[in-house]
Amino acid sequence: MDFAFYWIDLAGVAIFAVSGTLLAFRKKMDGFGVIVLASVTAIGGGTIRDLILGLPVFWTHDQTYFYSILMAACITIIWLRYRSYIPMTTLLVADAVGIAFFAAMGAQKTLMAGFPPFIAVIMGTISACFGGMLRDVLARDVPLVLKGELYATTCIVGAACYTLLVAIDPLLALAVGMTATLTLRLLAIRFRWSLPVFSDSQDNV
Amino acid sequence: MDFAFYWIDLAGVAIFAVSGTLLAFRKKMDGFGVIVLASVTAIGGGTIRDLILGLPVFWTHDQTYFYSILMAACITIIWLRYRSYIPMTTLLVADAVGIAFFAAMGAQKTLMAGFPPFIAVIMGTISACFGGMLRDVLARDVPLVLKGELYATTCIVGAACYTLLVAIDPLLALAVGMTATLTLRLLAIRFRWSLPVFSDSQDNV
Amino acid sequence: MDFAFYWIDLAGVAIFAVSGTLLAFRKKMDGFGVIVLASVTAIGGGTIRDLILGLPVFWTHDQTYFYSILMAACITIIWLRYRSYIPMTTLLVADAVGIAFFAAMGAQKTLMAGFPPFIAVIMGTISACFGGMLRDVLARDVPLVLKGELYATTCIVGAACYTLLVAIDPLLALAVGMTATLTLRLLAIRFRWSLPVFSDSQDNV
Repeated sequence: MDFAFYWIDLAGVAIFAVSGTLLAFRKKMDGFGVIVLASVTAIGGGTIRDLILGLPVFWTHDQTYFYSILMAACITIIWLRYRSYIPMTTLLVADAVGIAFFAAMGAQKTLMAGFPPFIAVIMGTISACFGGMLRDVLARDVPLVLKGELYATTCIVGAACYTLLVAIDPLLALAVGMTATLTLRLLAIRFRWSLPVFSDSQDNV
Repeated sequence: MDFAFYWIDLAGVAIFAVSGTLLAFRKKMDGFGVIVLASVTAIGGGTIRDLILGLPVFWTHDQTYFYSILMAACITIIWLRYRSYIPMTTLLVADAVGIAFFAAMGAQKTLMAGFPPFIAVIMGTISACFGGMLRDVLARDVPLVLKGELYATTCIVGAACYTLLVAIDPLLALAVGMTATLTLRLLAIRFRWSLPVFSDSQDNV
Repeated sequence: MDFAFYWIDLAGVAIFAVSGTLLAFRKKMDGFGVIVLASVTAIGGGTIRDLILGLPVFWTHDQTYFYSILMAACITIIWLRYRSYIPMTTLLVADAVGIAFFAAMGAQKTLMAGFPPFIAVIMGTISACFGGMLRDVLARDVPLVLKGELYATTCIVGAACYTLLVAIDPLLALAVGMTATLTLRLLAIRFRWSLPVFSDSQDNV
């Protein structure tokens, strides 16, 4: 059980590391800037989650997460050497898979630490969104999370699905939560969905 | 006593949420970007204060803060629907009221946790300034706190007033501290006061 | 022993405060914006290190660090009054001395708290890089750490030297670690070294 969660967590870290490396490539960063951006993206959200919950930060006693980041960054770099062009869509999809992982995992860790379900949904969203937010702030992009297309909303839906279903079966809850976030986010990117709160003032941007 | 502080804290959170929502409107963000920016502004400073002091983060066991943010953001959005224009001054004033609340409350919480008065003044300033700083960094504005007009100075004065007077009467200290910050900041905005440290080099900006 | 470390720590804080003040000067900030930027640069990296390690944040029980920041900022400001021009190189060198201090000190504090050597190297790098990263994000520069010239690499080398040699003699380890970071970084600035990972795509920036 915990074993499955551990591997899913590692996979989420690796995918966010890929997303950080891809942005570093688009921004023409070199050398270690890539590793820094990959690491911040991959473990930033989880670090903030653990700090706020008062838990030991997950990577301080386990080096495996860094090997995972290094491997993901190196494979991405080598792959980019043989393909000179990387489309924006690839970055968005890598990011979507990453947030799907982390929204459910963040909710799971919060519930296991004994916090109420409402906080679990919020912490799942923070785990999922803040790594990418740090990545975008450091690379001087407008954070994806603020640009609409249901970004934060999909994380909230995924974390809420997990929190609702976890009493029945944790692995089922994880599968449904991740699928919900990923499907919604990919559909939102594909069809350019957005919440219409300020839509009429957006016409004259 | 604690009851009064609790409501003042909630009011401060709501006012900062309004200030985050107003900036999101000016930046033409849509949907959940608004909620994210409102939340970061409203609870960012207090979260950093609690993390640094090693206290449990104030909103992890109390959902009321989030209801307060959601209500403030919704009311602001509905109000903006009926007024297409929002002057910069409104944003500055909402921000000024927010920092007045948080500078005094931050000093109060630090003293109650047993830290020395000097640290209480600094933590009051951090509580007040960092929420708005995160807001401005995420929205890619130059942080207000770095643009002068006595921003951080007013927080330091308010937190210092509270720290000096708290031995006499906590509610009096709170009232004086908040009034000091608010008055100074509004006067500074009105008359464009600034500390003249680098003023001669500002002529040729 | 601890006494020596304490003074070295204070010196590192003061040097980073100078680097923050210099950037504030270049960006034509006035008054307290300078103090905020100097403080964030000087204690930001160490604060994040202590939060992640779950230690009490180093400056919350010792006001000396703030006197050190204030003194460093004031001396820098007074010095700048008599020299209207400040070359970019001075900023880079002040920054290089700061990261040399903090990379070794961060590794030392992590090892003393009982964490494994691998984490000590990472925390040394974080201590050294994150203060400057926060400084650059707040001042809206591209963070130095992401711009190459071996920035993060030099911190890793310095922290690794300290971690390897500390079993022999802590002060020797500190001297070698700091010298390694400083020498590498100054050479990298002088000769514009960089890791060649994405170099071929940099031709058409």
